Amino acid sequence: MTDLTPTPADKFSFGLWTVGWQGVDVFGGAIRPPMDPAYAVQRLAELGAYGITFHDNDVFAFDATPAEKEAAVGSLRRALDETGLGVPMVTTNLFSHPVFRDGGFTNNDRDVRRFALSKAAENIDLAVSLGAQVFVAWGGREGAESGATKDVRAALDRYAEAFNVLGAYVLEQGYDLRFAIEPKPNEPRGDILLPTVGNALAFIDELDHPELVGVNPEVGHEEMAGLNFSHSLAQALWHGKLFHVDLNGQHGPRFDQDLRFGAGNVRGAFWTVDILESGGYQGPRHFDFKPPRTEDDDGVWASARGCIRNYLILRDKTRAFRADPEVQEALRAARVDELSVPTVAEGESLADVRAESFDPEAAAQRGMAFEALDQLALEHLYGVRG
Amino acid sequence: MTDLTPTPADKFSFGLWTVGWQGVDVFGGAIRPPMDPAYAVQRLAELGAYGITFHDNDVFAFDATPAEKEAAVGSLRRALDETGLGVPMVTTNLFSHPVFRDGGFTNNDRDVRRFALSKAAENIDLAVSLGAQVFVAWGGREGAESGATKDVRAALDRYAEAFNVLGAYVLEQGYDLRFAIEPKPNEPRGDILLPTVGNALAFIDELDHPELVGVNPEVGHEEMAGLNFSHSLAQALWHGKLFHVDLNGQHGPRFDQDLRFGAGNVRGAFWTVDILESGGYQGPRHFDFKPPRTEDDDGVWASARGCIRNYLILRDKTRAFRADPEVQEALRAARVDELSVPTVAEGESLADVRAESFDPEAAAQRGMAFEALDQLALEHLYGVRG
Amino acid sequence: MTDLTPTPADKFSFGLWTVGWQGVDVFGGAIRPPMDPAYAVQRLAELGAYGITFHDNDVFAFDATPAEKEAAVGSLRRALDETGLGVPMVTTNLFSHPVFRDGGFTNNDRDVRRFALSKAAENIDLAVSLGAQVFVAWGGREGAESGATKDVRAALDRYAEAFNVLGAYVLEQGYDLRFAIEPKPNEPRGDILLPTVGNALAFIDELDHPELVGVNPEVGHEEMAGLNFSHSLAQALWHGKLFHVDLNGQHGPRFDQDLRFGAGNVRGAFWTVDILESGGYQGPRHFDFKPPRTEDDDGVWASARGCIRNYLILRDKTRAFRADPEVQEALRAARVDELSVPTVAEGESLADVRAESFDPEAAAQRGMAFEALDQLALEHLYGVRG
Amino acid sequence: MTDLTPTPADKFSFGLWTVGWQGVDVFGGAIRPPMDPAYAVQRLAELGAYGITFHDNDVFAFDATPAEKEAAVGSLRRALDETGLGVPMVTTNLFSHPVFRDGGFTNNDRDVRRFALSKAAENIDLAVSLGAQVFVAWGGREGAESGATKDVRAALDRYAEAFNVLGAYVLEQGYDLRFAIEPKPNEPRGDILLPTVGNALAFIDELDHPELVGVNPEVGHEEMAGLNFSHSLAQALWHGKLFHVDLNGQHGPRFDQDLRFGAGNVRGAFWTVDILESGGYQGPRHFDFKPPRTEDDDGVWASARGCIRNYLILRDKTRAFRADPEVQEALRAARVDELSVPTVAEGESLADVRAESFDPEAAAQRGMAFEALDQLALEHLYGVRG
Repeated sequence: MTDLTPTPADKFSFGLWTVGWQGVDVFGGAIRPPMDPAYAVQRLAELGAYGITFHDNDVFAFDATPAEKEAAVGSLRRALDETGLGVPMVTTNLFSHPVFRDGGFTNNDRDVRRFALSKAAENIDLAVSLGAQVFVAWGGREGAESGATKDVRAALDRYAEAFNVLGAYVLEQGYDLRFAIEPKPNEPRGDILLPTVGNALAFIDELDHPELVGVNPEVGHEEMAGLNFSHSLAQALWHGKLFHVDLNGQHGPRFDQDLRFGAGNVRGAFWTVDILESGGYQGPRHFDFKPPRTEDDDGVWASARGCIRNYLILRDKTRAFRADPEVQEALRAARVDELSVPTVAEGESLADVRAESFDPEAAAQRGMAFEALDQLALEHLYGVRG
Repeated sequence: MTDLTPTPADKFSFGLWTVGWQGVDVFGGAIRPPMDPAYAVQRLAELGAYGITFHDNDVFAFDATPAEKEAAVGSLRRALDETGLGVPMVTTNLFSHPVFRDGGFTNNDRDVRRFALSKAAENIDLAVSLGAQVFVAWGGREGAESGATKDVRAALDRYAEAFNVLGAYVLEQGYDLRFAIEPKPNEPRGDILLPTVGNALAFIDELDHPELVGVNPEVGHEEMAGLNFSHSLAQALWHGKLFHVDLNGQHGPRFDQDLRFGAGNVRGAFWTVDILESGGYQGPRHFDFKPPRTEDDDGVWASARGCIRNYLILRDKTRAFRADPEVQEALRAARVDELSVPTVAEGESLADVRAESFDPEAAAQRGMAFEALDQLALEHLYGVRG
Repeated sequence: MTDLTPTPADKFSFGLWTVGWQGVDVFGGAIRPPMDPAYAVQRLAELGAYGITFHDNDVFAFDATPAEKEAAVGSLRRALDETGLGVPMVTTNLFSHPVFRDGGFTNNDRDVRRFALSKAAENIDLAVSLGAQVFVAWGGREGAESGATKDVRAALDRYAEAFNVLGAYVLEQGYDLRFAIEPKPNEPRGDILLPTVGNALAFIDELDHPELVGVNPEVGHEEMAGLNFSHSLAQALWHGKLFHVDLNGQHGPRFDQDLRFGAGNVRGAFWTVDILESGGYQGPRHFDFKPPRTEDDDGVWASARGCIRNYLILRDKTRAFRADPEVQEALRAARVDELSVPTVAEGESLADVRAESFDPEAAAQRGMAFEALDQLALEHLYGVRG
Repeated sequence: MTDLTPTPADKFSFGLWTVGWQGVDVFGGAIRPPMDPAYAVQRLAELGAYGITFHDNDVFAFDATPAEKEAAVGSLRRALDETGLGVPMVTTNLFSHPVFRDGGFTNNDRDVRRFALSKAAENIDLAVSLGAQVFVAWGGREGAESGATKDVRAALDRYAEAFNVLGAYVLEQGYDLRFAIEPKPNEPRGDILLPTVGNALAFIDELDHPELVGVNPEVGHEEMAGLNFSHSLAQALWHGKLFHVDLNGQHGPRFDQDLRFGAGNVRGAFWTVDILESGGYQGPRHFDFKPPRTEDDDGVWASARGCIRNYLILRDKTRAFRADPEVQEALRAARVDELSVPTVAEGESLADVRAESFDPEAAAQRGMAFEALDQLALEHLYGVRG
């Protein structure tokens, strides 16, 4: 086991709303006091984070005056300067205030949609001023509980319009900023628009400037739909659209648990780190978790520290797995490499393929040797190899 | 309640594998004898279907000789001629034979992938000869149970290659045939590639001829991921990609139940019919269900007849719902129409929007009146209105 | 369709926390102002409820002084007197205040457990003084997010101790009050103790006075575990333990939706009403729903009114279903009556059964005719029969 | 890491149907040839199993003549004698033959129920003759797809009758055999009776001889309902009813995956082993998995071997976790020990508790220190401690 001390090169970042979560849920009130963003920055720096992220209203109140906003941002900037932390990503809160009861960009009320655009645009300016290069859009209230109340095709029109308008603004201003859509199937809405990474990827292709928009997959959100998160990451990478990632933990289809990374689906976490590390992703390793309500301030930092440690532990393991000669042999036995060979060779035609003779009964005898390979992976995960 | 007698204009179709399902599952063997396709065609014609669909191996055995295939197809053609039924869609079985244990188009074994391409191409020729215009591709065995055994990005490359090769073949032959990918999240594989309608829509955009390929959403498959099927249909329609549809019933995330249409998520079925009827979809209303193992031959037809009746019942209801003046008033009260108005008007800029004053506290007082609207919908569903 | 006007004999009741829900969730704050219990009582009376229910802290604040409590309860009593509504059930809030972060009766902290007992006992006195005969116990925070933090067997010991102590108190005081445990699988805890109706029924058998304790099944809670709610009710009735019921709506394994009754799993709602009406249940038809955050005060009452209407609509349908001669014939065809005949007749022995000859191949030919029966049920549900 | 070589004292057992599964599922036929039970016994002995288990029809065909049965059992006995393996458990197949299309003990058809009783009784005789002490009853086809077709209360009557009749038989014969009910929520039926461990535990209390009947929880079955398997085990142990256990792997609510133990929910597997090893369970560690269809014979044994290895790996880890002084300190910090102290002391009354003063605001400040404890557990699981 190598050293588990994080460095800035590891690119660990945290949302201010994660460690700052006061524990309000449907069934109970705050169990922790509000956390000063400057305090959060300092503690996260100590843990080894390289950056923090936030929603506008994590830093200043929804109804803050310009002076209050300036003061709050100023305080944050000072904390960032003191610690050397950056702000790789910023996102907008279009879901907490009652005005967003039916969402922001796809609210049935046009004036609310216009307000949402304004709020996002103002936050884009702030994001850029702090050096952020990714602007995440989680449309948590974009959705419906019942059928007739939301015309989904019209909603997608408005959703696309919002990204087109904001994208044009970013281009016009010459900002170095890209958008990342964060899919989620449900909660708090009965059904949320763009429920999976796939739905968001498809949506992006219809935008005026698809190159400006990618996805921000979240472990728990995909797993709430019973999907394999590492497959979602793989498809996002295949499309060149993995602009950001939200790491946390979940136990399958149920409420959004936001457990610390590594503490939910452990086997899934191993493959998540494997593809992030081997798939060419260069962005932040961003933790979007909630320290459980059982915890006080000490527990918050134990939880945050666990996110980082688990990532580093799993990174070591996946590297050892990939480097293990027995694994490499097992990969060959499973013909994993053969999948990268085109099915129809350069110069061949379908007619050539069809003319070929093949004995399916003989081929059907071949086992794939997948269990032996997966057992090696598990033993790396369990730490009894490598 | 209008007449519930179906006509060919209703475009009801059934897979031969549905009524012909013998009841084999993981825990038990056949409970019904094999069904002659000609018998199925005749009975389905009597029920009011306008067409049937099939996998190649629903009509002839995997290892049938050319003569056997010809005889089997000939028998089917005669039954079609006698009844006047058509074959709007054909699909290929790339999942039952043991040679497909790791899938067809994305099997790690290249020779199996080549065989799968051949089998599909041969089936395309048959499909076209029978007049089919849609060729469904359900990649039921394209997936994995464990992490390292499938390189998902390489698998997507091969998957795309398959559609590119087959698409080029269709163009080359001048066939009037389009492909429809049928997504499913899992079962029989632990995780299946292209698990949701969204993932498939995104994938299609990367193909050489995206215009040739759309989706074939299935009620139960989306609901196995906890997704709202009518939302999936709406997004598919929004992309212009709803080429076919598979109607059946399911009770949420669990095994693939394939209940008769209307007998699973009833509220979902109402909105499914609503969007199919109002959203511009012109294709077959195709039932992909399994008469439960409890049933004998009589029960098979009771179940099939139920699919049609439930569709017609729900079509009546959704039409009555849309025509109800009180509903129209409730839609206005919920500002559903306002969502079709662009957020930024022609000629306006984002700057105009940002310059506008807006009182979020006042706007936050407005209720959306969604519950009243949805209750009207439910009362139409329950048949106590309209 | 008979009249849908409710009467007190219908026994509709609502929790004050349902219509009074302000809309606070994990992602947003209150969207409706606090509701005066007296106002709620008056509006619910107008809708046709016969009773209301509450948690202690729905009526007075957690830290209310004795005088404040008295004033609040007095105001409630006056509203009850004016409207003639009763209080058939009361329950205790052992989950909202931060002191209950790890639960009440099974909190690791003994002093918190003692406080929880005290709070419950005080609330029992209040419940009895208002005429309640059922005391519901939902242990929403009794559970854990992680493995070692909760010794489940010790927790069940403490849980049993709590019901033993409170049961002894009720007996000692001569109170006419029974307890009803409300199971839930998860949310807000990662896993909640006594997650299903079955777990609670088993637990009750280990108590000092099992006759004092039954269950309060909630539609959504069982459906969050993918279970069939009418089966859960049937098993509770079979044990003689259905002391109360919580009616609402849910869409399968996901967050706790608390939709209005009839607006989630519609087919499930039909069978829920069927078994409640035919199974001998005499208690309140209690609605435990949450008017969605989209709604203002008008929407709250539209939603509440929908609960009652849907119950009455479904009651009509289930009665018509059971009275339909074609249904009765179909029930016989499905041999449903035969299941009530003992398998081994009075006076017979297992040896007699074993000596009997039986032809399984012949018997295997018999279909069960379930699809035809279920289609009749669906057509009653859809309102196209009866 | 200690030696991972199993010994008979570890009590590892496998169902013949696990390694012998031919891979038939709803979508495809056999991919492996039938496996001779004697071969299975020999290979399992080599792997370190101490016993095997079976359904009657794993050893001989449903329609075997007495002579065929004798020959088959004789061959099995010889293999057992040669290897020294035992048969700790036997179970009956009341689900594969079409005669059981509506179940066995709760089939609507009385003659089928009688046949099921006969078949089970005959199998009890065989079980006892082979030394089995546990007789598992998985009622896989006891259930329904639709509402009216199964009178659940009558079905529970018949279910109870079956256990009463068979229990009386066992007592009468003086057999040393106990029953273990195996719950499952669904698949192959839409809903199965006694869907969770809790439902079965409650049911048992209504039997004539509850002491004869316990439960056989299966990892995947509880997890298909989203339940925490170690909690289910804990409650079963609390009731003194954990008579047997089925170990395998699953990924939450979806089809029944039957992955090898340790290869599904890894975190859950850790806590499963922890409670089995520390909770007083003395019975077999029985694996009920299915080697995936991708595997040939070599893969079957790789998969089976993985089950054993993963159990042993996790047993080491949970022992190290419990022995770790830092963990013990963390358990105290989390007040886990305090939960074993009665809430009301010997000699105290509820009145004493109520008279006590308590400052909830002060107590609410205390964190539970659960995250730090769980992170220690995870680091043991990951193998970076201990």
